[in-house]
Amino acid sequence: MIIDGKKLSNQLDNSMKAEVAALRESGIEPKLVVIIVGNDPASQIYVRNKHHKAIKLGITSIIERRPQDFTQPELLTLIDQYNRDESVHGILVQLPLPKQIDESAIIRAIAIEKDVDGFSPENVGKLFNNSHDHYPVSCTPKGIMTMLAHYNIDPEGQHAVIVGDSNIVGRPMGALLLNAGATVTYTHILTKDLSSYTRTADILIVATGVAHLIKAADIKPGATVIDVGMDRDENGKLVGDVDYDHAKDVAGAITPVPGGVGPMTITSLMQQTLELAKVANNRTLETVK
Amino acid sequence: MIIDGKKLSNQLDNSMKAEVAALRESGIEPKLVVIIVGNDPASQIYVRNKHHKAIKLGITSIIERRPQDFTQPELLTLIDQYNRDESVHGILVQLPLPKQIDESAIIRAIAIEKDVDGFSPENVGKLFNNSHDHYPVSCTPKGIMTMLAHYNIDPEGQHAVIVGDSNIVGRPMGALLLNAGATVTYTHILTKDLSSYTRTADILIVATGVAHLIKAADIKPGATVIDVGMDRDENGKLVGDVDYDHAKDVAGAITPVPGGVGPMTITSLMQQTLELAKVANNRTLETVK
Repeated sequence: MIIDGKKLSNQLDNSMKAEVAALRESGIEPKLVVIIVGNDPASQIYVRNKHHKAIKLGITSIIERRPQDFTQPELLTLIDQYNRDESVHGILVQLPLPKQIDESAIIRAIAIEKDVDGFSPENVGKLFNNSHDHYPVSCTPKGIMTMLAHYNIDPEGQHAVIVGDSNIVGRPMGALLLNAGATVTYTHILTKDLSSYTRTADILIVATGVAHLIKAADIKPGATVIDVGMDRDENGKLVGDVDYDHAKDVAGAITPVPGGVGPMTITSLMQQTLELAKVANNRTLETVK
Repeated sequence: MIIDGKKLSNQLDNSMKAEVAALRESGIEPKLVVIIVGNDPASQIYVRNKHHKAIKLGITSIIERRPQDFTQPELLTLIDQYNRDESVHGILVQLPLPKQIDESAIIRAIAIEKDVDGFSPENVGKLFNNSHDHYPVSCTPKGIMTMLAHYNIDPEGQHAVIVGDSNIVGRPMGALLLNAGATVTYTHILTKDLSSYTRTADILIVATGVAHLIKAADIKPGATVIDVGMDRDENGKLVGDVDYDHAKDVAGAITPVPGGVGPMTITSLMQQTLELAKVANNRTLETVK
């Protein structure tokens, strides 16, 4: 089975469009602010994509562009302005930031109820403690949980193996799966005999940035394989961290690259913007983590 | 090898005594406030033990006892008073709290720089993100890391398996081991074929509250086995979650119950009080997580 993230994200986008229209009818205008500092070319593309997606769904999107030499105090002032602006529901500061700015200080400065990337320590702590509150979570793992649910893959009692323990993907992914009842193994660059872990995974999440790290022989037959990688092979072709062409014959379900996790991340960002807008307006959330 | 937590905690207590004396010489008076609400008999003993240990080391200890019907607003007011009191370095609210009080609201109310139990979401998030800041961590896992270091057991590249994923022990324990470079597996009540995980553990941490859950056959020969359990067997004898008498012949290193993890937890609480006192006074910390 191919887990079609592109198709699912399109479906979710369509229902969000209707939801945003209904929210606007009822007087709630979901609003996202994206702040970008400097000229990183990849960041420019990401920010543009987020902006276009928001507009397409009817979410009000503000992009704040600042020069490469923007200072930390200036950035903190800008964030504070939007923290205090009640019309804004989500604030996202595009990473990486120029060297003169301390990223962790910036992440901590975003009001936790507008932390649409879910990176603030308080929201991360709530995730790791499986808190009963609503809290935003990192968008890539959130999108993966949505895909698993849509394809009726229940993590409870399954062995989930995470390859790559970054704060943005691997770590929150493991916490979400643990909260969903999975047995969770975190593997990473220091793990010895990686294959001995991946071959026991019922659900394998790969987020390393190493093209074709995971081969068919590393996969348990029938496993669900989620590939977060967006790498280039020797010919410059976009490939994942999993050797898809051979892995698909072993896996029970697998995400392609492109068209798997990627489209779900941006859709999850939009879903989370809506969730924060609804929480800010005391609306009930239908989605439960 | 027997990992002697009692002996190690005595050693650490002795050096802390000297350290507290030196801090007092230099004008810093480490001060811990423990708040207990209601009459839970076990909590009364824990609080008394903490108080006596603090006094023994020269740490100023204040116990605030409040009746079973103390309200949440009253407790928040009491915490706020100590949050604002610059002479206080650590605030601990003994759990569990009476039903009329929301524990998570109370934990969040403690100033993060005085959160000596390390339970606040922001400190938990910093732990889970392996933040470079200083932050307090839950005392039982902290004590276990101290024991491992003292016995020259380096988690880097080792497979650490956690049995029991509570917020107080299992989860922060896994995060500390992950931060130290271990491959970490979280197992729990929903895990299928638990033994298939425990038998691959180089470092096995058991914190379930189930007497003798882990038998010799569940342990990899030569593994380090850390038993957090404090259970009663059918004869009322204090035992651990590990069947120590048989497990000790298989394990490479093992903690007894009693005399293993237990004494280290309270010593770690005192260490953390000192760390918070030093951070509050801009002193350098010798201990690095």
